[in-house]
Amino acid sequence: MNKLLEQINSPDDISALSVERLKLLAEEIRELILASVSRTGGHLASNLGVVELTVALHYVFDFKKDKLLWDVGHQCYAHKILTGRKDTFADLRHAGGPSGFPNPKESPYDQFIVGHAGTSIPTAIGMALAQQQENKTDKIVALVGDASIVNGVSFEALNNLGLVKRQLLIVLNDNSMAIDATQGAVAKYLSKVRLSQTYEDLRKTTRNILEHMPVIGKGVDDAIEKIKKSIRMALPGSRLFESLNIPYFGPVDGHDIGSLSELFRAMSHLNRPAILHVYTKKGFGFSPAGQDPSKYHSTGPFEMNGDSVETAPSGRTFTIAFGESLSKLAAEDKRIVAITSAMCDGTGLGEFRSKFPDRFYDVGIAESAAVDIAAGLAKEGLRPFVCIYSTFLQRSFDQIFQDISLQNLPVVFCIDRAGLVGSDGPTHHGLMDIGYTRMMPNMVLTAPANELEMKLALEFALRQASPCVIRYPKDVVPVMSDLEMLACAQLFELSGAVAVRKGKNPQIALVSYGSVLGEALKAAETLAKDGIEVDVVNARFAAPVDEKIITLARRGKGIITIEDHYLACGFGSAVLEAAASSSCAHGPKGKRNAKIAVLGAAKEFIEHDLRSSQFRQAGINADRIVEKTKELINE
Amino acid sequence: MNKLLEQINSPDDISALSVERLKLLAEEIRELILASVSRTGGHLASNLGVVELTVALHYVFDFKKDKLLWDVGHQCYAHKILTGRKDTFADLRHAGGPSGFPNPKESPYDQFIVGHAGTSIPTAIGMALAQQQENKTDKIVALVGDASIVNGVSFEALNNLGLVKRQLLIVLNDNSMAIDATQGAVAKYLSKVRLSQTYEDLRKTTRNILEHMPVIGKGVDDAIEKIKKSIRMALPGSRLFESLNIPYFGPVDGHDIGSLSELFRAMSHLNRPAILHVYTKKGFGFSPAGQDPSKYHSTGPFEMNGDSVETAPSGRTFTIAFGESLSKLAAEDKRIVAITSAMCDGTGLGEFRSKFPDRFYDVGIAESAAVDIAAGLAKEGLRPFVCIYSTFLQRSFDQIFQDISLQNLPVVFCIDRAGLVGSDGPTHHGLMDIGYTRMMPNMVLTAPANELEMKLALEFALRQASPCVIRYPKDVVPVMSDLEMLACAQLFELSGAVAVRKGKNPQIALVSYGSVLGEALKAAETLAKDGIEVDVVNARFAAPVDEKIITLARRGKGIITIEDHYLACGFGSAVLEAAASSSCAHGPKGKRNAKIAVLGAAKEFIEHDLRSSQFRQAGINADRIVEKTKELINE
Repeated sequence: MNKLLEQINSPDDISALSVERLKLLAEEIRELILASVSRTGGHLASNLGVVELTVALHYVFDFKKDKLLWDVGHQCYAHKILTGRKDTFADLRHAGGPSGFPNPKESPYDQFIVGHAGTSIPTAIGMALAQQQENKTDKIVALVGDASIVNGVSFEALNNLGLVKRQLLIVLNDNSMAIDATQGAVAKYLSKVRLSQTYEDLRKTTRNILEHMPVIGKGVDDAIEKIKKSIRMALPGSRLFESLNIPYFGPVDGHDIGSLSELFRAMSHLNRPAILHVYTKKGFGFSPAGQDPSKYHSTGPFEMNGDSVETAPSGRTFTIAFGESLSKLAAEDKRIVAITSAMCDGTGLGEFRSKFPDRFYDVGIAESAAVDIAAGLAKEGLRPFVCIYSTFLQRSFDQIFQDISLQNLPVVFCIDRAGLVGSDGPTHHGLMDIGYTRMMPNMVLTAPANELEMKLALEFALRQASPCVIRYPKDVVPVMSDLEMLACAQLFELSGAVAVRKGKNPQIALVSYGSVLGEALKAAETLAKDGIEVDVVNARFAAPVDEKIITLARRGKGIITIEDHYLACGFGSAVLEAAASSSCAHGPKGKRNAKIAVLGAAKEFIEHDLRSSQFRQAGINADRIVEKTKELINE
Repeated sequence: MNKLLEQINSPDDISALSVERLKLLAEEIRELILASVSRTGGHLASNLGVVELTVALHYVFDFKKDKLLWDVGHQCYAHKILTGRKDTFADLRHAGGPSGFPNPKESPYDQFIVGHAGTSIPTAIGMALAQQQENKTDKIVALVGDASIVNGVSFEALNNLGLVKRQLLIVLNDNSMAIDATQGAVAKYLSKVRLSQTYEDLRKTTRNILEHMPVIGKGVDDAIEKIKKSIRMALPGSRLFESLNIPYFGPVDGHDIGSLSELFRAMSHLNRPAILHVYTKKGFGFSPAGQDPSKYHSTGPFEMNGDSVETAPSGRTFTIAFGESLSKLAAEDKRIVAITSAMCDGTGLGEFRSKFPDRFYDVGIAESAAVDIAAGLAKEGLRPFVCIYSTFLQRSFDQIFQDISLQNLPVVFCIDRAGLVGSDGPTHHGLMDIGYTRMMPNMVLTAPANELEMKLALEFALRQASPCVIRYPKDVVPVMSDLEMLACAQLFELSGAVAVRKGKNPQIALVSYGSVLGEALKAAETLAKDGIEVDVVNARFAAPVDEKIITLARRGKGIITIEDHYLACGFGSAVLEAAASSSCAHGPKGKRNAKIAVLGAAKEFIEHDLRSSQFRQAGINADRIVEKTKELINE
């Protein structure tokens, strides 16, 4: 660790530093981020971009008392380093180490655990309204990026900013580097502003703001008018925000700690909400090609994947299998279009985008609109595949209900990152998608257990005239035996479960949903060694549930369902419902009660860790299945 | 029925009419709407406001082929009358008659079943993209109101409008009548534009647009520039939309059929998306105070409730009980604040707003932001009560997860219109809220069975340090016997169910959740007459489930759960899960399987009808409980 940073154990320790020393500190923080992320994985470029911004914020505000709100939150590394977490930073995203997102359990300097886009402004408004109501004067700062300010909830909040009649500083961290065809109107607007600005303009704007900024409590409104006028002369940037009645300042240089500090200090005294538009550069200060890449590359697998660094996958992932399968299908069926919300690479759509650029839509971080646009596409006869992570698709729950399920449109939801997600932790787990989609009429829920089934599931979905949900995890596809693969080679038929392993006189059947089939097979193997024979059934569908599963549950000691989802409202729950409903109406006398044990995650938030450790913690791995089977048999 | 309208059986029949005749037609349509709505209830003012607009749209476009997309959709009455549904219009919102919302099952002129705000633009974009991809040229028109264009999904769509490179007309139906303190920035902006306009200005703008509008396919881009420039001279209206790169035209008079027709015709040839800003007046042409109110009032109970007409409630509603209880609590506890999204009256908050204006927030149709603002308020120590209908709170699913449940903040969700909602039909039923909230850690789910329990449930929620969900239906509070009320007078304790009726040697317990307790008690009474004794238990909580319920389920013939929710993921499902989980681990040997039958709505969309009829259809009324009990006993 470097010298200056060694002395910084809390933001208090930087208050007496000169701007020159702050610059040095920023460099040391950048080095620590690089060194750690190259080992642990995480978001690199966005964090390197906000180091100066973060240092300046902590230099001016006192976030023991004042409130700093992050949006998405993956850019909080410098903040974590400055707020007493530098010594554990080498364990970033590892069990026991700091998480990759803000978390009040880690530090009083963090307000909300966040990971989804667009929430900093509305939550900041709520805090400001409370302060207003209670006549408190803590300063509130909400950071938001140019990619996440366009999310619906962010705009809804901006539209309600007028409720706040006191200080609330919104820092718009604009790090967009280029005009991209897939960008939306706001991005184009910001790009236009950016292209109109020279570096000298940014300095001029900074001076303008500082010159006209009022002293505390005096003539604030007048001053704002003066600043706005003098800035507007030079700049086109204010129009969008002014039409929404939001005082806008900027753009200014987000890497100039000195100017930023002065600006923050001046703006902290405004008695109304305001936006400061700040330019930063993703990956600022890190040019591995130019400098000494080996220094950062030697510490471990180090691969830039968009904004984030991921250790190289140890095998073929479900995501890759999905992307390739969909591209193949799309070559045969021209009705197929793909939609994603700022997650083209993450959802494996890279190949699809290159091969079918006119049939690929990236709507930015706008999950709700993505689903409604899919509804329109399907209404006109196309076959949209909506590719969004499980946790982010939660943003589209109501659109899936009204605009897909109620209309019975054949949209296919390709839910990546379903289940436990490993190092991203609780904001990113996809533990509710079975529940929030299986309640809806017309929805068919399926989950492939391996790569072969991914292809079959997609083909099945395309044959349907109704909406279909396909879920799969952030994981490698499991390797199975030839015999097992043979079972999985059967075509997908609506609700049809398949037997993958047959025990001799089995008392129990293990019924798994999706990729946890691998765990069930492993458990069956272990049990066989202990002389306990079980069947293993691959349910394939969570809605509708195969009646065969209910029949199995009435045999011998019954069944155990296994899934990578909350137990609440999950696959097992669907099986319980099906058994409870079918039993009274149709069940043979005296056989009303099917014997069903359910394995799924308990209603808890599982912290960042290895996915395998999270499985152990959630009790949905092979060991737990073995244990549960023995419990059932010994009852 | 009047003369001209008699001859109109489809939009084809108006194509040859003169503008003068169209005006007459509009008047006749208005009369029919008034006559019908005064009898059936429904949305009156908004429908009267768009009669001319609707006539002009059908005059110019051919919506057999072209696409007309409504937003929220409650203003589609004139459209329904013009598209072959005038003869059944007297049965509006009644079983067998037209629904109060667009519905493709009723007519090929309807595209989507809608009822939630903000979806017309994104679905229109989807349809336009499909047309673009397939080189089709059907015209697409999306209507959107000034209240719903601010919803997040609508903004996300506007931000993506640039994806569309062909015709797409957005008609912004601006009927805002006054600047209201609770309005957002867009509303203020539109009001400012409105205040700057005289009637003569609107006419001038219309002429300007028509003069410069290009002939088909020729110099469209240039012409748009010319129009924009000539309009901008006179008007401030374009700034917001231009900063989003959306060609904006207007404002123009929305009651001038002749001008509207010319404008629609001209704009239908634009080869890119554009917005036409139209002023309409809610309730246009109807002044019951001035003219002959008796004519409209005599036909039945007729009461203006904001925009909609509701027949007078036949008793005290849960909504009123909630509003009064919350106001009383708020008088004692200053931390209490209330938040709603454009549903102050609908959620019973009128009294709260008058008594505590500084503690009341209406954020407009922005359910997602409402929840995040509540998160901020709670973070700062206040106790927010979020009051939103069950179906609309679906818009906040992800915010409830990340910003409330994950943070474990004590926000209380007061979910009105939970369960079946009667005449509004499938877009408005609240049949999923138990499921979408009970999956989340930290959430406590409770439901009052009557007015007394409403008060107790609110008091309970205020005592909690965690988030709490309280659901109640669009219905009157049930009247119960003194003995029954005595049972309900017990304080709410976390997860604690209460026995409301004790049978002698009962074989079955009926376990109800929320207001369906009334049905359970009625069933018990009927069964007693048949000599069948049952217990009736008021569960009060769906999460956590009372272990006592599981114990009951292991007694005699078991239990029947009853709820006003989809069976999938509902209260009964939670009981099944609890039984399945507790049985293996803790259940006595041989008693693993609790006997649980579940009654809830099947996974279907239940059409508009009386709530009582919908209950019968869903099979969750007293009759069905009796039947199910006998089935269980005879097994």
